[in-house]
Amino acid sequence: MYTPEYLEDFTIRVFEKMGCSTEDAKAATKVFIAAELNGLPSHGMLRLKDYFELWKAGRINVRPDVKIVHESPSTAVVDGDGAIGMIAATKSMEIAIEKAKIAGTGWVSTRGSNHYGIAGYYSMMALEHDMIGICMTIANPVVAPTWSVSKMLGTNPIAVAVPAKSYPPVVADFATTPIARGKLAVAGKKGEKVPFGYVQDKDGVPSENPDILKEGGSMVTLGGSYEHGSHKGYCMSAIVDIFSCVLSGANFGPFCPPSVAYLPVLDEKVGEGTGHFFGAMRIDAFQEKGVFLSQMDKWIETFRSAKPAKGYDRVLIPGDPERENRERILKEGIRIIEPIQKEMKEIADHLGISFETGM
Amino acid sequence: MYTPEYLEDFTIRVFEKMGCSTEDAKAATKVFIAAELNGLPSHGMLRLKDYFELWKAGRINVRPDVKIVHESPSTAVVDGDGAIGMIAATKSMEIAIEKAKIAGTGWVSTRGSNHYGIAGYYSMMALEHDMIGICMTIANPVVAPTWSVSKMLGTNPIAVAVPAKSYPPVVADFATTPIARGKLAVAGKKGEKVPFGYVQDKDGVPSENPDILKEGGSMVTLGGSYEHGSHKGYCMSAIVDIFSCVLSGANFGPFCPPSVAYLPVLDEKVGEGTGHFFGAMRIDAFQEKGVFLSQMDKWIETFRSAKPAKGYDRVLIPGDPERENRERILKEGIRIIEPIQKEMKEIADHLGISFETGM
Repeated sequence: MYTPEYLEDFTIRVFEKMGCSTEDAKAATKVFIAAELNGLPSHGMLRLKDYFELWKAGRINVRPDVKIVHESPSTAVVDGDGAIGMIAATKSMEIAIEKAKIAGTGWVSTRGSNHYGIAGYYSMMALEHDMIGICMTIANPVVAPTWSVSKMLGTNPIAVAVPAKSYPPVVADFATTPIARGKLAVAGKKGEKVPFGYVQDKDGVPSENPDILKEGGSMVTLGGSYEHGSHKGYCMSAIVDIFSCVLSGANFGPFCPPSVAYLPVLDEKVGEGTGHFFGAMRIDAFQEKGVFLSQMDKWIETFRSAKPAKGYDRVLIPGDPERENRERILKEGIRIIEPIQKEMKEIADHLGISFETGM
Repeated sequence: MYTPEYLEDFTIRVFEKMGCSTEDAKAATKVFIAAELNGLPSHGMLRLKDYFELWKAGRINVRPDVKIVHESPSTAVVDGDGAIGMIAATKSMEIAIEKAKIAGTGWVSTRGSNHYGIAGYYSMMALEHDMIGICMTIANPVVAPTWSVSKMLGTNPIAVAVPAKSYPPVVADFATTPIARGKLAVAGKKGEKVPFGYVQDKDGVPSENPDILKEGGSMVTLGGSYEHGSHKGYCMSAIVDIFSCVLSGANFGPFCPPSVAYLPVLDEKVGEGTGHFFGAMRIDAFQEKGVFLSQMDKWIETFRSAKPAKGYDRVLIPGDPERENRERILKEGIRIIEPIQKEMKEIADHLGISFETGM
């Protein structure tokens, strides 16, 4: 088990060695550690190798000039200048928060970025400012619109964080697909089938094969089938795509740049880099803060008191699973599986820094 | 078949006879007619009886003072003063648009309202101002959160309208449940089963019985089951609830006031009336308008060119079904089924105006 501090120090050094400023290295690292603490290792240290390889391939800019290129009192378009996604995203959310302080709300659409880790992290940045935070991003195109077999959309997650008074915040952070892509990979490695409603084959026939993407298949949108409302998941994913990429001038849908170096840069581009969308809404732009926070407490108590279905002992509030993971992992430490430790050691050796395996 | 003009004149007269101003009567009527033209009769003339009964029971205010009670440069809370939902909602969206003209975006959370018909109508109001329109609302609580059997949420729809250049706008308008509630009623009347993944019984066991709500059952959120991501549908529905009701001070979740007079007013209230949420984002607050509209054309062409799955001949763009219905219904006329015609005749007789049945 690793301590968050050990991994944080290591990751900061990795980014510094790649050429990032200390400030940027720290900002990016925070998101990696948050993913590990939230129990989402698919967005944690596992991704460090991807960034390392993109850096080696000269496909990310470690000294980016992340800046506003267009703005209004409550909006901005930010150009990430090819930055590590976490750096462009943190800056963008900070701008949304600054806009909200004056205009009541702030909305930033960001282009020229890269994969940014967990969406929930940025939405939660708004909480300490007594704001609601919102965050969306596109992702590698592996998802087909309803009635189609073309991989045109990513798992396009949405995150919304809402503060409460006596209780932890409500934090909804979810993909617009039935499952995250990582779960398919896990099932594939174990040789297990997945339930119908996750993926389809190259003709659009529902499949139980988690490796079907390698055979021309695709993931489907939330809902799973038209009969069960997958067109609604398609609508949501399309909104994420348009807000993140068309508003900012990034590469929408199928043109999303690969977040890994082993996939080639696409021949055609329709914008700059990867796109995200951020929002911050000041609570007191709508309600007296105390009133709102008390009502949120009441909202949480109401949903917490929902009667559980047979076989369940409680009903969750959005954000419960990640918070409970965090409490547990802060006590137990962060477990890094051996193949990832090996990758981290290779990165360390390449950069001339130390990393202790087997912890 | 009825012409839109005939139904429009009739509906305006109904609302005027109830005591609405001509301006309010016209505003409300527009939404009813739009629902019929979009091929959504469940939100059209069928709802007139509900409003008529609520009016007879003294449960709506036909001379409301719909007004801003709190605001910032980009936000407002609107109190609907017990108005017909369409009237409070139209005014609220107008305020969001006015805010966006100055601040770049406008966001309005509305309380003290009632059922407002189709969400898509309000989102589309933004289009003629070169803005993206957003609209959400809560609805009667018939949906259980994941792992629960308590009816705490409505079908809580979200609508987003985005303008394009040479093509019709992208208009996503969807419930956060696998199906709309009306479809259950239709299956129930026909004595048909529904697929698993729409409803559950009083213990939370998946059911095929469309009438299960009468036996303590509930609808489930988009995803259908936890395995298929119903917690993501729950997250979306919770966001709609919080934005519409906690931000505005309306009755959230299970406290949503009934939209029909045959259900009693709830004993407990946690706010004022029904809540909605509206947003307007000026295109040129993000991008030069011409650039954005051209990119939207490219977005539409890209998704239009997606390869259809086996057995399908095309892939839809959000908004296609409603627009195609409108084109057809404008030619053919509006079909009102006999039981609804009968209700309309009863309303007409009560109010001393004419309505011709059998058309």
